[in-house]
Amino acid sequence: MQELLRRHRLVLDVAHRQRYGEGDDRHELVENLVHRQALSDLRNHLDPMHPADIAYILEALPLDERRIVWDLVKAERDGDILLEVSDSVRETLIESMDRDELVDAVESMDADEIADLAPDLPTDVVEAVRRQLSPEERDQLRAAMSYPENSVGARMDFDAVSVREDVTLETVLRYLRRFENLPDHTDQVFVVDRNEVLRGALPLDRLLINEPEVLVMDVMQTDVLTLQVLDSQSEAAQAFERYDLVSAPVLDPRGRLLGRLTVAEVVDVIREEGESDLLSQAGLRDEEDLFSSVWNSAKNRWLWLAVNLCTAFFASRVIGSFEGTIEKVVALAALMPIVAGIAGNSGNQTMTLIIRSLALGQVNASNARRLVAKELSIAALNGIVWGGIAGAFAWWLYNDTPQGVTLGLTMTLAMILNLLVGAMIAMAVPLGLERLGRDPALGSSVLLTFTTDSMGFFIFLGLASIFFR
Amino acid sequence: MQELLRRHRLVLDVAHRQRYGEGDDRHELVENLVHRQALSDLRNHLDPMHPADIAYILEALPLDERRIVWDLVKAERDGDILLEVSDSVRETLIESMDRDELVDAVESMDADEIADLAPDLPTDVVEAVRRQLSPEERDQLRAAMSYPENSVGARMDFDAVSVREDVTLETVLRYLRRFENLPDHTDQVFVVDRNEVLRGALPLDRLLINEPEVLVMDVMQTDVLTLQVLDSQSEAAQAFERYDLVSAPVLDPRGRLLGRLTVAEVVDVIREEGESDLLSQAGLRDEEDLFSSVWNSAKNRWLWLAVNLCTAFFASRVIGSFEGTIEKVVALAALMPIVAGIAGNSGNQTMTLIIRSLALGQVNASNARRLVAKELSIAALNGIVWGGIAGAFAWWLYNDTPQGVTLGLTMTLAMILNLLVGAMIAMAVPLGLERLGRDPALGSSVLLTFTTDSMGFFIFLGLASIFFR
Repeated sequence: MQELLRRHRLVLDVAHRQRYGEGDDRHELVENLVHRQALSDLRNHLDPMHPADIAYILEALPLDERRIVWDLVKAERDGDILLEVSDSVRETLIESMDRDELVDAVESMDADEIADLAPDLPTDVVEAVRRQLSPEERDQLRAAMSYPENSVGARMDFDAVSVREDVTLETVLRYLRRFENLPDHTDQVFVVDRNEVLRGALPLDRLLINEPEVLVMDVMQTDVLTLQVLDSQSEAAQAFERYDLVSAPVLDPRGRLLGRLTVAEVVDVIREEGESDLLSQAGLRDEEDLFSSVWNSAKNRWLWLAVNLCTAFFASRVIGSFEGTIEKVVALAALMPIVAGIAGNSGNQTMTLIIRSLALGQVNASNARRLVAKELSIAALNGIVWGGIAGAFAWWLYNDTPQGVTLGLTMTLAMILNLLVGAMIAMAVPLGLERLGRDPALGSSVLLTFTTDSMGFFIFLGLASIFFR
Repeated sequence: MQELLRRHRLVLDVAHRQRYGEGDDRHELVENLVHRQALSDLRNHLDPMHPADIAYILEALPLDERRIVWDLVKAERDGDILLEVSDSVRETLIESMDRDELVDAVESMDADEIADLAPDLPTDVVEAVRRQLSPEERDQLRAAMSYPENSVGARMDFDAVSVREDVTLETVLRYLRRFENLPDHTDQVFVVDRNEVLRGALPLDRLLINEPEVLVMDVMQTDVLTLQVLDSQSEAAQAFERYDLVSAPVLDPRGRLLGRLTVAEVVDVIREEGESDLLSQAGLRDEEDLFSSVWNSAKNRWLWLAVNLCTAFFASRVIGSFEGTIEKVVALAALMPIVAGIAGNSGNQTMTLIIRSLALGQVNASNARRLVAKELSIAALNGIVWGGIAGAFAWWLYNDTPQGVTLGLTMTLAMILNLLVGAMIAMAVPLGLERLGRDPALGSSVLLTFTTDSMGFFIFLGLASIFFR
């Protein structure tokens, strides 16, 4: 036991040591063994590992080494591992398997798991697997594959254990003893009527604590959070978070129990949401295999760079139209990026807060106006403070030239105006996208930078062209 | 039952409708009732709500209305609600309570909950509450308050149910029946020896499925992931995610059971990590009350703006030192922001990926070199492609001037070089911070923009000053 505990402490210790530069760890050990072609040693190390750990190691290995490790482990636990790796890495693993290996790996999975993998599998493999399923499983598979990507249906499993309300706890216990294991994350069994309509839920602790002769209906919870297959995953995740749930029943529109959503899936939803927010802010698609080819990685990033190049050229044309003014007062060229940059930063702060509040559902028609007023006030205050400082600095820099004072004033005025423009765009774009039913985060930051750059140059150089006529 | 189900469907429906502009919802209803001063109506609506829902509504209300609602609900469930609201909103609620109200609210809480609130409470309240605790609870409170902010200890609770290994399941069941409720998220009871040293865990389903006369030691799991109080929350969360856990025992260095960590806390950790990444990228502190005063909000954002203003002035001085060249070829002023901007965007993509891989522990000494080579190749490829396009465009724009061709060439060359600089900084900064044991995300993006701007201007104008001598 002590040894087992120690081994499992190790699992976490690895997480501790899986940090750049902190010496060897299991992942480096594996890479080392691959290098030395010590394959039987390698197999000994991989055998006792949890499939999730192997998946993790595969993700961190370059393609050629990944394939060597995969060939060693895939015979026995390929299915479990395929389910654990990220989508982009899964593609590279599936490519290296032939049709029979794939069918073997997939056919023992649950319907909801097959549905997860199906989009990445060759169609003939999916067909072969489908033919081996029971009629009930085939229905489940068809259902699971039909739910939209971000719906609860796409994440639910079909492992819900259900009982009737008019039996005793004794009967329930006897029924449960016929299982070898309860499905993971079974914190409650669901109570349904003859038509599979949900009547309540019986948490396992009530089953344990109450006397066996009590009826299910007398101790079941009727106060259950239920989900519909088409509810959004993100909102279901918020409900799990808010009410600290471990599982929740998923119903069809007529109230019949279809399956359940567990906190394990919810954790994945929350993690993926956080990551995709960060990645999409940088204009990256949802994920990129750390070791995909240079060409694939570059393509993944091009759309974003192309869009940014276009907006940068537009801003450049704004400057170009004031070339006469710049020729007169060349200091303007040095000062103009400051006006654009600070407004972009300040607008980005406003936009981050608004997008977060929208995601949490905390902005509505009645408080939006107050928020707008608050953010505009902050922008004005920031404009006066930072525009003032920047103006004073510009004056100090150029106080040996005849234009010093005017440069400082232009700077201050332009910064106040551009900060206000930035704040307006930072709120109008996400609120507008939300109203149109789009993701408020998508594309907001390009539009913001585009506006604060172009308008920053336009306001600053425009004012200068008046003052220095 | 149908009604209860419907009511609880509502809870989620509210989440559905709590979107800007989609008409009324409970939160707007509450705001409406506050406006109309319909306080008894309001109380009727608030009474059946879950504390987490009330907390959510309080967070979305402006300060004055928040106080009205809080005064209505605080008498009965203030403790539960205080635990649910965000830190910044909690401060505003505590401000409106007097000492006795606070003591009443807090004294019925568990030690770990008191420890969560303690930093926000006046010290005399904490002292008064501490005096009313049992000696055991007082020890727990002292321990809970002593763990560092990001440690497992700061998130664990003391509700672990434990049994001995040499008793029968029957005995365990009889012991559990003496509880009124098992603690939330009890998916297993822990098995300890006489000295409280962990020996294993008994999942509730094994307790249910096996015959009552079996001994605990024969069916317990010895293969348990255990945590230490000083383990990092973020790594514990990764372990929960990887192994799909609901709870895990927390041990002291001698292996004795101190408490447990549950998935409900892990969900919060993951959500907070995602949010703080996003917020800190925009230079905001961890959270900002949506309705804090203009002054407080502005102060929260100043450090970031000040830092950016300094870096912007530095970049401005780089341009200033080439004023002679710009005076000769004023088109340079219009083109230079493009060179700086695209390298910033491309570097930001690289940096986002590196920071994510570091957070997942997927970068180590042996694969870092390959990653660096890959990212530099991508930067070079992007430089040739986008620098080429930008150069061609610049040439086309200025092809009626004598400098057209040279401008285009300068543009292409400067973009290739600056993209390489951006990629190097995007990798060196996070990898360096990680090696120093710092958070690789913190401050990386300022440094990146600073470099791509300053170096972009320097390279482009520097090349131009040679070519246009």
